[in-house]
Amino acid sequence: MTLMPVTDSVFLFIESREHPMHVGGLQLFRKPEGADGQYLRNLHDDLLKKNDIDPLFRRRPAKPLNTAGYLAWVEDDDVDLDYHFRHSALPQPGRVRELLELASRWHSILLDRHRPLWESHLVEGMQDGRFAVFSKIHHALLDGVSALRHLQSTLSPDPFDFECPPQWAPRRPRKSDDERGPRFSLLRTARESVDQLVTLAPAAFKVANEVFRENALTLPIQAPKTMLNVPIGGARRFAAQSWSLTRVREIATATGTSTNDVMLAMCSGALRDYLIEQSALPDDPLVAMVPVSMRKPSDTEHGGGNKIGAVLCNLGTDRKDPAARLGAIHRSMREAKRVFRELTPVQALLLSALNVAQVGVTSLTGLAVNTRPPFNLVISNVPGPSEQMYWNGAKLDGIYPASVLLDGQALNITVTSNGDNLDFGVTGCRRSVPHLQRLLLHLDTALAELEHATR
Amino acid sequence: MTLMPVTDSVFLFIESREHPMHVGGLQLFRKPEGADGQYLRNLHDDLLKKNDIDPLFRRRPAKPLNTAGYLAWVEDDDVDLDYHFRHSALPQPGRVRELLELASRWHSILLDRHRPLWESHLVEGMQDGRFAVFSKIHHALLDGVSALRHLQSTLSPDPFDFECPPQWAPRRPRKSDDERGPRFSLLRTARESVDQLVTLAPAAFKVANEVFRENALTLPIQAPKTMLNVPIGGARRFAAQSWSLTRVREIATATGTSTNDVMLAMCSGALRDYLIEQSALPDDPLVAMVPVSMRKPSDTEHGGGNKIGAVLCNLGTDRKDPAARLGAIHRSMREAKRVFRELTPVQALLLSALNVAQVGVTSLTGLAVNTRPPFNLVISNVPGPSEQMYWNGAKLDGIYPASVLLDGQALNITVTSNGDNLDFGVTGCRRSVPHLQRLLLHLDTALAELEHATR
Repeated sequence: MTLMPVTDSVFLFIESREHPMHVGGLQLFRKPEGADGQYLRNLHDDLLKKNDIDPLFRRRPAKPLNTAGYLAWVEDDDVDLDYHFRHSALPQPGRVRELLELASRWHSILLDRHRPLWESHLVEGMQDGRFAVFSKIHHALLDGVSALRHLQSTLSPDPFDFECPPQWAPRRPRKSDDERGPRFSLLRTARESVDQLVTLAPAAFKVANEVFRENALTLPIQAPKTMLNVPIGGARRFAAQSWSLTRVREIATATGTSTNDVMLAMCSGALRDYLIEQSALPDDPLVAMVPVSMRKPSDTEHGGGNKIGAVLCNLGTDRKDPAARLGAIHRSMREAKRVFRELTPVQALLLSALNVAQVGVTSLTGLAVNTRPPFNLVISNVPGPSEQMYWNGAKLDGIYPASVLLDGQALNITVTSNGDNLDFGVTGCRRSVPHLQRLLLHLDTALAELEHATR
Repeated sequence: MTLMPVTDSVFLFIESREHPMHVGGLQLFRKPEGADGQYLRNLHDDLLKKNDIDPLFRRRPAKPLNTAGYLAWVEDDDVDLDYHFRHSALPQPGRVRELLELASRWHSILLDRHRPLWESHLVEGMQDGRFAVFSKIHHALLDGVSALRHLQSTLSPDPFDFECPPQWAPRRPRKSDDERGPRFSLLRTARESVDQLVTLAPAAFKVANEVFRENALTLPIQAPKTMLNVPIGGARRFAAQSWSLTRVREIATATGTSTNDVMLAMCSGALRDYLIEQSALPDDPLVAMVPVSMRKPSDTEHGGGNKIGAVLCNLGTDRKDPAARLGAIHRSMREAKRVFRELTPVQALLLSALNVAQVGVTSLTGLAVNTRPPFNLVISNVPGPSEQMYWNGAKLDGIYPASVLLDGQALNITVTSNGDNLDFGVTGCRRSVPHLQRLLLHLDTALAELEHATR
């Protein structure tokens, strides 16, 4: 039995039917050449035999009841792997639509606290012959960034590497981070920073609440109240799609902006179209909370310390012209980073902790629901692999993050880079955000419009 | 908004992650002749269009949070039918085993209190070409018997009746009960009696608790403590299979017992084999709580009043000989009914209410978990249709009830007659009752052994 730090237990305390506190990840794969009709059944059965389970995937709360008794983790010595790792299938016609419907259902369901807090679903029945893996892990075990990184660590750039571990297995000894180049080091630092921020989160609630209420912290912009900032239910919708990173880069180059700015402009255009469709576009521009790396080019690789910030971005959704929106976003991000740098280190840390831990909103419910929210949604961009990855010979087509929602924040967009793609994962409250999947269509339109407007 | 009677709200109050309070039903169908590959997709889409929803299937708690605020039902005017009625598929090889695995998962998941408290899953992908429907409805809306009756009321004895309603639709005007013969009248009376008992349940807890503790009520037998009488987790296993009613009847006729006695003897034999396998067979015989009809042959059809009782039955699991076990069960049931008739009407009602409502055990947890339990499991026999039934041309192969479990009661067996079959539904706590599906094998063996021993 291990004492559970408050940073873990807080995610168990605040979890309820309305607020499942697990993060999800949907991976799409192409079967290796020569795979037959039994491929997935055999894969499932082979993986079930890999019952050497990482201690993290053995952890469960010592007292599963929802009382004040959450003080310890126990390591389960008798994990029922068959319960956690499940073989599932899509109904006909087996399109991505049916896959997202199933992923939405799974993302809505609470993890069983009597068991280690994770599930993994291997999905067959896609009409295009691909297969999928949908994974869930509790935020008390891994935050979103770490969970995504953990999933990525099961993959290999080598299509002939057939020793890739399942998610729950201990990792293979591998090349040191230094040998694998700066991307992985950066990721490691980012993860450590996130850990630090999460550690601060509970202490941050009270202080940050006061900061917001008393306007001691001058926020650069004010978010309007929207249909996205309401109390939420427990059911989720999850939508996911990939777009070419090259197309996004070309717009950034042509306009002197960053790929992150262009990604935000895609989200902005899509949100604008969606809200117009719902007759719910506010006059004032939407404000996104965007976690960013605060690392300066001059920082040494192992500079340490907190380099992840969370800034507020004016999404310019009040503007009709896509290029004008991109310009507004670019300026807002530049300004936000400047403001951020002017905060005291403690204020900066608190502001970031609120966002990265994604729990601040709960203690701010009064603010978020009854008055103007501090921001309208979180849009995150998490670095992923820069090259094509494989899992035991299966080519990774996409890796889409499914996030946690809280009262007052009914929508989340999390994007990850994956080879030459940007993979968008959109998580929404099923009741408050109707027709969520239309955001995918609008994202597609927004990218095309940006290309047209900046050509 | 309708005030919610305490008899409804009690099921919402006591529900938790460990104790989902919905009942389930698994129906197995054969496709009509000439059904093509699109049959199920088309059926799903057609049914989704039937959005005339019965008021019962619109009901949700006015306050979904788990507080003392459960006082009213509201009728949802905007039911998201696509959420409640779902199209699902089995992974390969699509055996009954995969179907039961999926039904087990669904039965483990709490219903969303922000919506009307039911779900229905249409399942394709069975290798033998059949399809299935798994339904869930909250005990606060319908108890197990009524839920089963409700499912049955969607069916028709006419294979060419293509106007069968989906579960959520209002029922068609139909022939009066009198025209449909005594079976339906009995069923109606049984339902009404169950309603009366459920109404009494909350008041009964305290009194019955005292009755048990003070031995004011002399129980005819004492149940041993077993592995089935422990605190439970939230995950379930569900197993189901049909056996020929003719085979059961032949044993009853040959031995001068009832089909209900033989059904109990099958359960007894299966439980004995299972517990031996688990090295957990107690020296003393297991005791089942068995709801029975107390109607005497001399009672007039519309006699009214409470005719449903719940008796304790010595299952004779200490005996090796199947015929001896059947004899013990027969004597115990006869004796139990006699004892029951000697109780004051109030005592009888309280005893029955405790069982039929299946909630008494919760308030008796101290008894059930720390000392000898009042009984080891509930075994119910619910009357079903006596003829072959159809649903829009699809032939009903089986209808299997999935029940509620509570602390101290980790296993439940509910049986329903269906044409020439007895359909067994076995519900267990996934953690406390390992390898639950082996009970099906043991039930099969038990029936064969009874035939052999009584031939």
